[in-house]
Amino acid sequence: MTNPEKLNAIREQMKADGVAAYIIPSADPHISEYLPSHYKCIPFVTGFTGSVSTVVITQDFAGLWADARYFEQAEEQLEGSGFELVKLKVQHSPEYIQWLSETLTPGATIAFDEKLVSVALGELLHKQLAYQRTQFKHKDYLSPIWENRPALPAQPAFLIADEHIGQSVADKLTAVRNAMKQHNAKYHLVSSLDDMAWLFNMRGADVSYNPVVLSFALISETEATLYIQSDKLTADDKANLAKSGVSVLGYDTIAKDLQFLPAESSILIDPRRNCFALYKLIPTSVQKILETNPSTHLKAVKNNVEVNNTRQAMIKDGVAITQFIKWVKENIGQVEITEISAAAQLREFRAAQDGFIGESFNTIAAYKAHGALPHYGATEKSNVAIEAEGLFLVDSGGQYRYGTTDITRVIPMGNNTEEEKTDYTLVLKAMIEGCKTRFPKGTCGYQIDAITRRPMWDYALNYGHGTGHGVGYFLNVHEGPQVFNATATAVPVELGMITSIEPGIYRPGKHGIRIENLVLTIADQTNDFNEFYAFESLTLAPIDTTLVKKELLEQSHIAWLNQYHANVYAKLSPFLNEEEKAFLGMMTSQL
Amino acid sequence: MTNPEKLNAIREQMKADGVAAYIIPSADPHISEYLPSHYKCIPFVTGFTGSVSTVVITQDFAGLWADARYFEQAEEQLEGSGFELVKLKVQHSPEYIQWLSETLTPGATIAFDEKLVSVALGELLHKQLAYQRTQFKHKDYLSPIWENRPALPAQPAFLIADEHIGQSVADKLTAVRNAMKQHNAKYHLVSSLDDMAWLFNMRGADVSYNPVVLSFALISETEATLYIQSDKLTADDKANLAKSGVSVLGYDTIAKDLQFLPAESSILIDPRRNCFALYKLIPTSVQKILETNPSTHLKAVKNNVEVNNTRQAMIKDGVAITQFIKWVKENIGQVEITEISAAAQLREFRAAQDGFIGESFNTIAAYKAHGALPHYGATEKSNVAIEAEGLFLVDSGGQYRYGTTDITRVIPMGNNTEEEKTDYTLVLKAMIEGCKTRFPKGTCGYQIDAITRRPMWDYALNYGHGTGHGVGYFLNVHEGPQVFNATATAVPVELGMITSIEPGIYRPGKHGIRIENLVLTIADQTNDFNEFYAFESLTLAPIDTTLVKKELLEQSHIAWLNQYHANVYAKLSPFLNEEEKAFLGMMTSQL
Repeated sequence: MTNPEKLNAIREQMKADGVAAYIIPSADPHISEYLPSHYKCIPFVTGFTGSVSTVVITQDFAGLWADARYFEQAEEQLEGSGFELVKLKVQHSPEYIQWLSETLTPGATIAFDEKLVSVALGELLHKQLAYQRTQFKHKDYLSPIWENRPALPAQPAFLIADEHIGQSVADKLTAVRNAMKQHNAKYHLVSSLDDMAWLFNMRGADVSYNPVVLSFALISETEATLYIQSDKLTADDKANLAKSGVSVLGYDTIAKDLQFLPAESSILIDPRRNCFALYKLIPTSVQKILETNPSTHLKAVKNNVEVNNTRQAMIKDGVAITQFIKWVKENIGQVEITEISAAAQLREFRAAQDGFIGESFNTIAAYKAHGALPHYGATEKSNVAIEAEGLFLVDSGGQYRYGTTDITRVIPMGNNTEEEKTDYTLVLKAMIEGCKTRFPKGTCGYQIDAITRRPMWDYALNYGHGTGHGVGYFLNVHEGPQVFNATATAVPVELGMITSIEPGIYRPGKHGIRIENLVLTIADQTNDFNEFYAFESLTLAPIDTTLVKKELLEQSHIAWLNQYHANVYAKLSPFLNEEEKAFLGMMTSQL
Repeated sequence: MTNPEKLNAIREQMKADGVAAYIIPSADPHISEYLPSHYKCIPFVTGFTGSVSTVVITQDFAGLWADARYFEQAEEQLEGSGFELVKLKVQHSPEYIQWLSETLTPGATIAFDEKLVSVALGELLHKQLAYQRTQFKHKDYLSPIWENRPALPAQPAFLIADEHIGQSVADKLTAVRNAMKQHNAKYHLVSSLDDMAWLFNMRGADVSYNPVVLSFALISETEATLYIQSDKLTADDKANLAKSGVSVLGYDTIAKDLQFLPAESSILIDPRRNCFALYKLIPTSVQKILETNPSTHLKAVKNNVEVNNTRQAMIKDGVAITQFIKWVKENIGQVEITEISAAAQLREFRAAQDGFIGESFNTIAAYKAHGALPHYGATEKSNVAIEAEGLFLVDSGGQYRYGTTDITRVIPMGNNTEEEKTDYTLVLKAMIEGCKTRFPKGTCGYQIDAITRRPMWDYALNYGHGTGHGVGYFLNVHEGPQVFNATATAVPVELGMITSIEPGIYRPGKHGIRIENLVLTIADQTNDFNEFYAFESLTLAPIDTTLVKKELLEQSHIAWLNQYHANVYAKLSPFLNEEEKAFLGMMTSQL
């Protein structure tokens, strides 16, 4: 079927059901960011492959709501599909609800697959459209027309031994139950896959880049049940889980168990991380306590084993990055290097490292003007050859059995302009400013964000994305609750959290520069004024200094950079051959 | 009556009414920060004169809840009163509600004067105590025992001509009505005195330091009524108001008019700036729309007349401050100067300036260790003589007919320690850092706060108060909605707002240092990256540089300070005599 044919087939079903509008969100029953192929509904229907968007279909209109990052890609991919791009004014905001309320007649029926809608979004739709008596239907119009729809992933899952992850499942369940008690919740439903992976010390390969396993959990004061495709775990793993008080049931059994929750009990549910379909199965007599998953915060604060393992992963990753930069610099002009071949070569260097499982996200290898597109991913069509001039931005990361990495470096290819040098220096200055800041306990991400941006504001420069995101432990490269951005998100930066610091400057049509380290929150001095914290730069890889205009830095920035580079050399050189060592020595020479 | 006798008399009335607990808040029917004497209930009952606290009385216990600023003062003033200090863990939080819920038996009755409780607090009490079926009674137990209770203030009010305030009452009403429309509100009740003063271009002297007038307003789509004691306005003023579509009725008439609001209409009420008593008079059929007063935001964005007039007030104030610093420096060791006599002398210098109405708050003249108490006010008992050593902190402000000022300077008296010099330099550095920052449109106070603190965090120093507060135009020295502090208050810093920047370092038992300028948000450059804003330092007064350790500052701080001082000299010197000019020249000489 072509895209217009699929659109027609959906409209026919809508007509038969008396449905005025059909919504297709980008999600799965776990409200994931990265989707298994089975749930890649929007690419199937529209041809658009960007990771965040919403489709709304009526008999007269078929629109895809996407934000500025995707405007160009969407215009191109939607051509001839029957779908039109609707440009979002505010990223992530459900602006199509406003459109629906203006377009539909009172009493009209809207349908969507309730498995693909979060509790929060489901409630919002009901609330915002209530005033015109909108009706809602739970409908999956895709399965009937989706020939050879990919099955749910069937990759095996595996458990990590306590000593390699620092906290037993039993201990984690105790911590979650303590939080349940504080909220007066008898039960707790978990659907989000990173929370699942953390809770049960379980990893898998059901989703690209995120080492997670499709599964749910229902936790009571005394019992915990893991719902998962039976063949994903070995008998040994199941026996181990049983020892921690965890029963294992089939993936779909969660539906039945929710329906039979005891009357007058209570259940803690994170409205942004559970689907509306499961939520609606819970008996009305059960009190729903809508709160953030307790595991979200517990997971963000890494224990000593996780921190020390991550430090090891950073050495592996730093070796691969060093080899990659050396390879680029030495081969440029000798053999053809393109954005795609460079990314593949980087993957090879990482793959040679012990414990490497896969990439933690799709590498952004962006040459010259491509670097100015913050979420650029090279395609066969956009791919260009790297030459001996301009800037080459590489944002990449690895999943290792003992940690997750995420790093951005910019490689100057030669003949760089004064503007490139100034921009590069100011991005570096901002990154250092964030990394070297000391701050009192209780400081929130919006404060770190402001401090990081200030050196750019001094020059009337800025960047349109956040300064940093939380990073998982051998888990998702994006995780909450902490975030370094300008929004009023009152989450303090705690000891043991791992977050990125990645300021940038983007000049459309010219170049993009971003430099990113992951940092760990550590204790600094305590005195009469406060308990102070600081950041340890976990990321260990050279930062090119050939473009640095020293006069734009303060002495404290140069001192930080020299110390950082000395540390990078000390930590990485034992794992390098003589040639690589010499290269790293040059790259990390003192400014 | 002694305080214990008053306490007994209240308990007798409680017993007769079957009331288990009586709450006395620190407020008036306008939920003011500064109270007319008539409403100084807590000082009357307990003897404690601090400006923020709450009293709760049961038959077994009488407590005064106050925050850390007042611990020392409260311990002292409450001695022998029958009241005990209860230390607040978190400033401004109603922790006594928790205490009440733990102390009272289910079904008990709590009483308070509903005129002295905000809508928000009233609702909170009802909500948090609902689970134990608490009953509530509206009771004033003070009037019956308060001999010679001060009458309501009867100071005359006056109107300011449009050309001296930049916007007519009619225009302001139109702006408020537009906001009402957006909220679908047919009516709007205003009780807060600064909003009243702004709306009606009216000032008075009903409250110390704040040039406001006891009054209410009820605004509909077509009418506006000002409720005020009839003799406060002249016939001319009333006629002028009538021309702007404003009727004038008696102060108490508001109660009746609220009771007779048309059924099925709607009213916009700010829950933190109206009292519970008036709120309860509104018929239940009228929809209550709880939103911030529209005038709060409108008032914060100063118009050109207000800005230019404030610049004039700053010159007057700067002249007075210069004369004061000169007087202190030249007289020390010659005549006795105490904290109280210095504050009086400063008032005299200000009073000699054209347009001076009074002080904008109680001057903090704090010598040596007294400076470490951020809200110190010298009393006859605490008063000390200033000598030729240590630091003398003076935080003061003036109300002028054309603007409100607030300034803190620290005068080094001689023989200063290295610690004093370092602390002084770092406070100055932080103040300059805040004043000189450029920031993109949309930046909120918490970002300015972080940028201001960073130079102190570098040295593991910090201060326990916010960095700055909004300031009115010939109005309250504290006004919202913007605030520069660490809380997640998502209010952007807009063009035309006036805010203070006042970092500090406090070493208990040793010294306190705070340096404060008021800044105006102004437009800076606009480019591809953003529309940028900056601050103009409105405050014009020398900052002592004798303690400055230049090596702790960056070149950009020194440049800012030199430019600031050049501007101070240029603006103030035309209004100084030769001796004063020479003194200011020395004080503002380039670093």
